[in-house]
Amino acid sequence: MTRSDGRALDEHRPVEVIPGFHRNAEGSVLYRAGRTVVLCTASVDRTVPPWMAGKGRGWLTAEYQMHPRSGPERREARDGRGKAPSGRTQEIQRLIGRALRAALDLKRLGEMTIALDCDVLEADGGTRTASITGSFIALAMALSRLQVTRAIPEPVLRDQVAAISVGHLAEGLALDLVYTEDSTARVDLNLVATPRGAIVEVQATAEDEAIPRSELDQMVDLGFVGVRALARLQREVLGRIGVDLAALFQAGRWVEP
Amino acid sequence: MTRSDGRALDEHRPVEVIPGFHRNAEGSVLYRAGRTVVLCTASVDRTVPPWMAGKGRGWLTAEYQMHPRSGPERREARDGRGKAPSGRTQEIQRLIGRALRAALDLKRLGEMTIALDCDVLEADGGTRTASITGSFIALAMALSRLQVTRAIPEPVLRDQVAAISVGHLAEGLALDLVYTEDSTARVDLNLVATPRGAIVEVQATAEDEAIPRSELDQMVDLGFVGVRALARLQREVLGRIGVDLAALFQAGRWVEP
Amino acid sequence: MTRSDGRALDEHRPVEVIPGFHRNAEGSVLYRAGRTVVLCTASVDRTVPPWMAGKGRGWLTAEYQMHPRSGPERREARDGRGKAPSGRTQEIQRLIGRALRAALDLKRLGEMTIALDCDVLEADGGTRTASITGSFIALAMALSRLQVTRAIPEPVLRDQVAAISVGHLAEGLALDLVYTEDSTARVDLNLVATPRGAIVEVQATAEDEAIPRSELDQMVDLGFVGVRALARLQREVLGRIGVDLAALFQAGRWVEP
Amino acid sequence: MTRSDGRALDEHRPVEVIPGFHRNAEGSVLYRAGRTVVLCTASVDRTVPPWMAGKGRGWLTAEYQMHPRSGPERREARDGRGKAPSGRTQEIQRLIGRALRAALDLKRLGEMTIALDCDVLEADGGTRTASITGSFIALAMALSRLQVTRAIPEPVLRDQVAAISVGHLAEGLALDLVYTEDSTARVDLNLVATPRGAIVEVQATAEDEAIPRSELDQMVDLGFVGVRALARLQREVLGRIGVDLAALFQAGRWVEP
Amino acid sequence: MTRSDGRALDEHRPVEVIPGFHRNAEGSVLYRAGRTVVLCTASVDRTVPPWMAGKGRGWLTAEYQMHPRSGPERREARDGRGKAPSGRTQEIQRLIGRALRAALDLKRLGEMTIALDCDVLEADGGTRTASITGSFIALAMALSRLQVTRAIPEPVLRDQVAAISVGHLAEGLALDLVYTEDSTARVDLNLVATPRGAIVEVQATAEDEAIPRSELDQMVDLGFVGVRALARLQREVLGRIGVDLAALFQAGRWVEP
Amino acid sequence: MTRSDGRALDEHRPVEVIPGFHRNAEGSVLYRAGRTVVLCTASVDRTVPPWMAGKGRGWLTAEYQMHPRSGPERREARDGRGKAPSGRTQEIQRLIGRALRAALDLKRLGEMTIALDCDVLEADGGTRTASITGSFIALAMALSRLQVTRAIPEPVLRDQVAAISVGHLAEGLALDLVYTEDSTARVDLNLVATPRGAIVEVQATAEDEAIPRSELDQMVDLGFVGVRALARLQREVLGRIGVDLAALFQAGRWVEP
Repeated sequence: MTRSDGRALDEHRPVEVIPGFHRNAEGSVLYRAGRTVVLCTASVDRTVPPWMAGKGRGWLTAEYQMHPRSGPERREARDGRGKAPSGRTQEIQRLIGRALRAALDLKRLGEMTIALDCDVLEADGGTRTASITGSFIALAMALSRLQVTRAIPEPVLRDQVAAISVGHLAEGLALDLVYTEDSTARVDLNLVATPRGAIVEVQATAEDEAIPRSELDQMVDLGFVGVRALARLQREVLGRIGVDLAALFQAGRWVEP
Repeated sequence: MTRSDGRALDEHRPVEVIPGFHRNAEGSVLYRAGRTVVLCTASVDRTVPPWMAGKGRGWLTAEYQMHPRSGPERREARDGRGKAPSGRTQEIQRLIGRALRAALDLKRLGEMTIALDCDVLEADGGTRTASITGSFIALAMALSRLQVTRAIPEPVLRDQVAAISVGHLAEGLALDLVYTEDSTARVDLNLVATPRGAIVEVQATAEDEAIPRSELDQMVDLGFVGVRALARLQREVLGRIGVDLAALFQAGRWVEP
Repeated sequence: MTRSDGRALDEHRPVEVIPGFHRNAEGSVLYRAGRTVVLCTASVDRTVPPWMAGKGRGWLTAEYQMHPRSGPERREARDGRGKAPSGRTQEIQRLIGRALRAALDLKRLGEMTIALDCDVLEADGGTRTASITGSFIALAMALSRLQVTRAIPEPVLRDQVAAISVGHLAEGLALDLVYTEDSTARVDLNLVATPRGAIVEVQATAEDEAIPRSELDQMVDLGFVGVRALARLQREVLGRIGVDLAALFQAGRWVEP
Repeated sequence: MTRSDGRALDEHRPVEVIPGFHRNAEGSVLYRAGRTVVLCTASVDRTVPPWMAGKGRGWLTAEYQMHPRSGPERREARDGRGKAPSGRTQEIQRLIGRALRAALDLKRLGEMTIALDCDVLEADGGTRTASITGSFIALAMALSRLQVTRAIPEPVLRDQVAAISVGHLAEGLALDLVYTEDSTARVDLNLVATPRGAIVEVQATAEDEAIPRSELDQMVDLGFVGVRALARLQREVLGRIGVDLAALFQAGRWVEP
Repeated sequence: MTRSDGRALDEHRPVEVIPGFHRNAEGSVLYRAGRTVVLCTASVDRTVPPWMAGKGRGWLTAEYQMHPRSGPERREARDGRGKAPSGRTQEIQRLIGRALRAALDLKRLGEMTIALDCDVLEADGGTRTASITGSFIALAMALSRLQVTRAIPEPVLRDQVAAISVGHLAEGLALDLVYTEDSTARVDLNLVATPRGAIVEVQATAEDEAIPRSELDQMVDLGFVGVRALARLQREVLGRIGVDLAALFQAGRWVEP
Repeated sequence: MTRSDGRALDEHRPVEVIPGFHRNAEGSVLYRAGRTVVLCTASVDRTVPPWMAGKGRGWLTAEYQMHPRSGPERREARDGRGKAPSGRTQEIQRLIGRALRAALDLKRLGEMTIALDCDVLEADGGTRTASITGSFIALAMALSRLQVTRAIPEPVLRDQVAAISVGHLAEGLALDLVYTEDSTARVDLNLVATPRGAIVEVQATAEDEAIPRSELDQMVDLGFVGVRALARLQREVLGRIGVDLAALFQAGRWVEP
């Protein structure tokens, strides 16, 4: 049984990544998963927020922004312009920040802030997971540059992180939902995890009725299938532009995939 | 091995519930779990938001507000006063709304809005789960009044919902963390579920390093222990004030606990 | 001639005070006058606002907030959330602050801020006077704690302060109006005063037509009847929890009532 | 004993009024009392706010705004620009609105809004009372025009209203304080009243210690001296431009002064 | 061929200037051009914005504000009150600031800010050009006072600046449009210039269709006619109050007109 | 004499245009001029703003937004997020809107809004002129689609519009300034014009001292050189994707270039 776009239930959308798309940021990718497109940039600033100053630790923060015409139907007002960003936007950018901070040893980064901007240019479901998966590549590019220029004394990465959605459709459990699937799914799960099978964050929401415990287990299993595939893709992209992911890992943390 | 407040790892805090504490709201409880105190009120309004009008469906919304002196140490500025509520507040009130909407069949409610206000008077961890567990009682009180006055033609409840936190402490997995435990936990999980073992929402976050898959499973198991205990407590409180929970359930949905 | 709730014209509503209701604040009461309920908390902070720093003086500030369901009819939007508090709210909290500052010798307090939060949980008229009368008790509790812990070197109280409303009803001048009385009164007067007969603040407004001078005089007289009764009640509450009001007064200021 | 500007204690500042200063508004004055200057304009709009529509009644509203350089010392940020007006500004404009509404029979005005804008160009104390006294003249000009053009079927004025401040200085009770006097006064009273001796609003605040009841009485007496003098001046200005105040009064309300 | 108000096409409106209208500001004029009235004040502050501190340079900034009843028809909400000023207001005040900064050698002013407030009391077209022309006089008054009190060590003026509008009407190119002309003009040009024929800023906008190059040239020529006339008027006003414009100019910059 | 990037003074930067870059918008280009990159999207909505409804006319509006890392040095806060967009941003987007409205006959468009979003991804000077030049292509793509689908009954374009900057550098007058040139230029002119030599808008600002009239004339001449070159490029891009610009013009308006 296949889906509207012909994919198998456990298949993620075709992903195209253009690293270095944004020339000013220390790391950047244009991340395209089907008809979802996110520009992820990683910017390095040699200061930390006032509440962190003097502790010798680094910080990583994220901002998520929808383009007004990200949807296929019609232009929306630009979220957060002239007023506070919506609750949804704030929830998503807090998630992105937590996800990527889990990949880093902030205590070793030094007093430095890495800001990840996730600009959703086109949206067809899965924008938060695309933002996380793409941001990891931008982050690795920025870290590589920091190591090359000796702006940081030692590697600070401790995990590779990717994210994917899983939903319960009429056809069964499915990976990486597009918008029309997402809006009819009975359950919506987002998994942020490492390719070695550890969980950074999992959020599962029954859209209508509560779901049996067993279903949660199956959805997490399926999510790991996607995370491993996307993590492989992250390594390929980084390899293509000469970034050796293993070299960015703290001593003893890298495990050959 | 016991915790700072003498509880066993799988023991929730002592809960005291004062139903009808707020005399104007259609349903209300003052919910005390240890040193966390939340005033939950359910207010019924015979209209729906403009974007829902004319569809014959009801709506349920939630607002979460910290009292400026909810913390033991010092007064904070009142969140959201004169500016947008913080991202944390918005995230929590969105969660409360989803959790309680899952308990209701909104299609049968009629064009009516139920607003749940969760005012955290004192905070010692677990304010979002206390808000959900307390709000369910306030909601049931309001529904009971709507049925008694025949303002709704038929029962609209389809599940009983409660929530609890689980954390990974040095001592092991623990239920219902207080603030000092929460701030040192390696993982933080919030489970919103039914006493029959179905999941409404689960959010698990690795505070520092990613966690093994098996740990997630154990934390969900422990969460269900807490949810069942709190659900029993909800039924006792409702019974004491003469609300028959079974009578609020849609036909065929009630299962004797 | 009696009123809708059976009171005599010069009788204030039955008052119930629960001191220590809020366990984190240095002083607190749940103040119930009929169907008006205000949670008053006094929080002590060992700093002063920037514009006062270095002068050796203390400060006292107040915040007033209506619960969204404070009214019996329907829920209102939470005032001041995501936008500036209403003019009415700002006017009231400025009044509360002035009233309580009059009770203190701020020059002797030292560089310290006492913040009074008045959360109106239920509203049936007289919320600003209930806030002032209740806040005085919370303030005295906080001062007592500061003296006991020697956080302040000497007593700083110079007056006992309470407040009450007076209105001109069809039945004649009446004390402590409930909402329905207030909305039909021809004149509305709020008196903040000491039990010894001195005025801290008086505000009288002709709701429709201007009023004769003589009527103002009678209303102030009636207000003092209420203030003296409420001041007696404040002392009883404080006595019950072991706070000796006389010991909080500056030398030479206390007069046995 | 005289004051810094040579006035007797019961003497108000010299007042200069330029009626018609603003040519677009239906009524306007430039009101100068010593070094306090307020531009008062009355604008008529043939609609009422939505919450009043369809009731056949009129409305009157007021806005108060300080010029950034109203003070002699230095420019301040323009209050309320890009953010909510300060609590002080809102409190004052609410007072001005109540004061002028007391002068009118809004039920007879018809569905029409009169907006009074009080722009304080220079400030040397007494800006709220100058705003009220000046606005009454602008209001009378606008009403006269409405009667002449038969835009209202009958006179709607029921009282003449003026306002003045009284303070307790070291020299004794004094009328119409300038800024330096106001900032050292022990009590500050603002009286809005009619020349016939009726009170529209009185606000008295003890700036430091509570004041004896008898003092309030004397301050109100002194305030009436000022109000009668300013009311005479209002009539003179209106007479000079050909506005017959008596003709603006409802039948039976005018009393020859 | 004459215009609705009888003026020739190359004639500006009659201008009346009252210098010193605002007594607190270091320089001020009430500037009336026909039915457009702007109160321009120049306030001197002995500090600079934080981002300029320590550079030894001065700053000049401008604020533009419409009175709510500036228009003849009806009162508008006060622009920028409780929210950000409109785009039009910000655009205009940025223009005024640039125009007047061009007249000054900020490097020689010392660490000092001159703030120009342009309050449009009545508006009938040409408010931005009236603001600039009037502000120059207020600025010269303030500079004169600074020189007289030796608050600045040397003259800092390097140009005289005035502004005027030009439009393309059905009758031909016309100077200094009133509102009704402005709203039907095919092109709208604002020229800020010196009487010696140098351009500070020119903005020309085709309201409907693009305009031929030659027309731009003619409009600039006509604008200079107006700027020279207004500059003469500025000198006359300053001369009347004893300000010698030549003495405010930097050495070698003044050219006898 | 050449410039830092090797260009001749009258040479614009190399431009690369990717039409259709954004797949959801009715028209879009990624417009790269040197190191300035703008994503221009044209979105069609079949409604007009409320104040235009029922007049049978169309509307065109523009929004301009800087990416937080548009600059090479460091990330800035995202302009306008949670607060009003800066004055600069509002000024620019108002200019873009006026420029593109000049290209259209809005009376013939029907009740429809075209929104142009100009997202500056990388900024190296000339972002407003790049936004206008790129937006014209996006607009033409959208109009072509509207004509093809017969959503508009007749062509509505009346002019081709492009924009370029001109500055006065030490080396002489120069076209299309990069950021470092722009910040040292003595004059800054932006020309919006048609390839046939008509002016839509011209803004010239003397950054320091006023400039002679003759210089304005030369700068406009030079600007037209750039506008003609960019207009040729616009036609080439549109031709490449099969959009016949001539067919979008109203009858009698197209002139073979």
